[in-house]
Amino acid sequence: MTTNTSLAPTRGPADHDVRDQVIQAAMLHFAHYGYEKTTVSDLAKAIGFSKAYIYKFFDSKQAIGEVICANRLAMIRQLVTTAIADAPTASEQIRRLFRAIAEAGSDLFFHERKLYDIAAVASRDQWPSVQAHEADLRQVIQQVLIEGREAGEFERKTPLDETTEAIYLVLKPYVNAAQLQYNLDSVETAVVQLPALILRSLAP
Amino acid sequence: MTTNTSLAPTRGPADHDVRDQVIQAAMLHFAHYGYEKTTVSDLAKAIGFSKAYIYKFFDSKQAIGEVICANRLAMIRQLVTTAIADAPTASEQIRRLFRAIAEAGSDLFFHERKLYDIAAVASRDQWPSVQAHEADLRQVIQQVLIEGREAGEFERKTPLDETTEAIYLVLKPYVNAAQLQYNLDSVETAVVQLPALILRSLAP
Repeated sequence: MTTNTSLAPTRGPADHDVRDQVIQAAMLHFAHYGYEKTTVSDLAKAIGFSKAYIYKFFDSKQAIGEVICANRLAMIRQLVTTAIADAPTASEQIRRLFRAIAEAGSDLFFHERKLYDIAAVASRDQWPSVQAHEADLRQVIQQVLIEGREAGEFERKTPLDETTEAIYLVLKPYVNAAQLQYNLDSVETAVVQLPALILRSLAP
Repeated sequence: MTTNTSLAPTRGPADHDVRDQVIQAAMLHFAHYGYEKTTVSDLAKAIGFSKAYIYKFFDSKQAIGEVICANRLAMIRQLVTTAIADAPTASEQIRRLFRAIAEAGSDLFFHERKLYDIAAVASRDQWPSVQAHEADLRQVIQQVLIEGREAGEFERKTPLDETTEAIYLVLKPYVNAAQLQYNLDSVETAVVQLPALILRSLAP
């Protein structure tokens, strides 16, 4: 995974090697001990830097978590883009959007549980990276709606922003890691039935 | 609040006075110290019974929590019944169902936070009272759909159980206390936009 620092508050010299080293150590520590239990001192010890030196690069533990979270959200965003890119219709894009989001979240839960826990904290506390991700998904939904409306697949009477928001609210329990964990039992039904309901609501 | 023990595992003599005393003490303790921090010993001390005596009436702390939870869910269920009883149309019943559920949950969160926390544990761990409540709400949705279909308000092509399940999944993040806390910011938008989306999907 490459680091993406654009969303994290940073200070000090832009020394990418040091930043990368901190992020790599943090990934390992968070994945092993969990985000909440790891301290900046633990990370400093692990890579042989002083705590003060790490603070030259990151304001706080959350700033380190933010980079990891932002990287993972960028990966999920990429999965969504890939999933919907070659969909033949806007309707199919809606179906694939739900499936891609639910699968990416479930994979994280079942295979990288400690990283999932960071995502749950980030979702619960609405970290900037999560807010940006959510805004971005709203944009994806709106773009699909515009295409579907232009193609005559979707109705055009309802204001675009209302339809976008409603669909986003239906998707949100599967985007938000703090919520997804309570929906894992029904996720297979959800990725079929929720897009089906939405597509019925979009019928011209 | 009267106690409703039908959903809780119980044993020993059906001495309603003692049971009520335990429940009342538990309500106070849970509301003050929280469900997770209170022990059966704390309750025993508070009402001057031995722990063993309490275990004659309740299998576990959860069995006590279950009664409290079931009572509260019965109140919420009653609010839903009242809210939809005099709705002039099935469409209006859908709108009121969403509003009643979201308001009951938000009220609990903002005004009885410690009881909300019991509800969140109960939702997270899918206590029997929660499962019964969820099944019951599915029944409410199905009944509204049947009425709306018979009145010609709703389409009849989609299998009834699919429509019921999809609507329940849209409602669930506002029913489930473990999830609702992450949706409080958008609850006012949700109770307008989600029923609107559903009603568009139900158009004949």
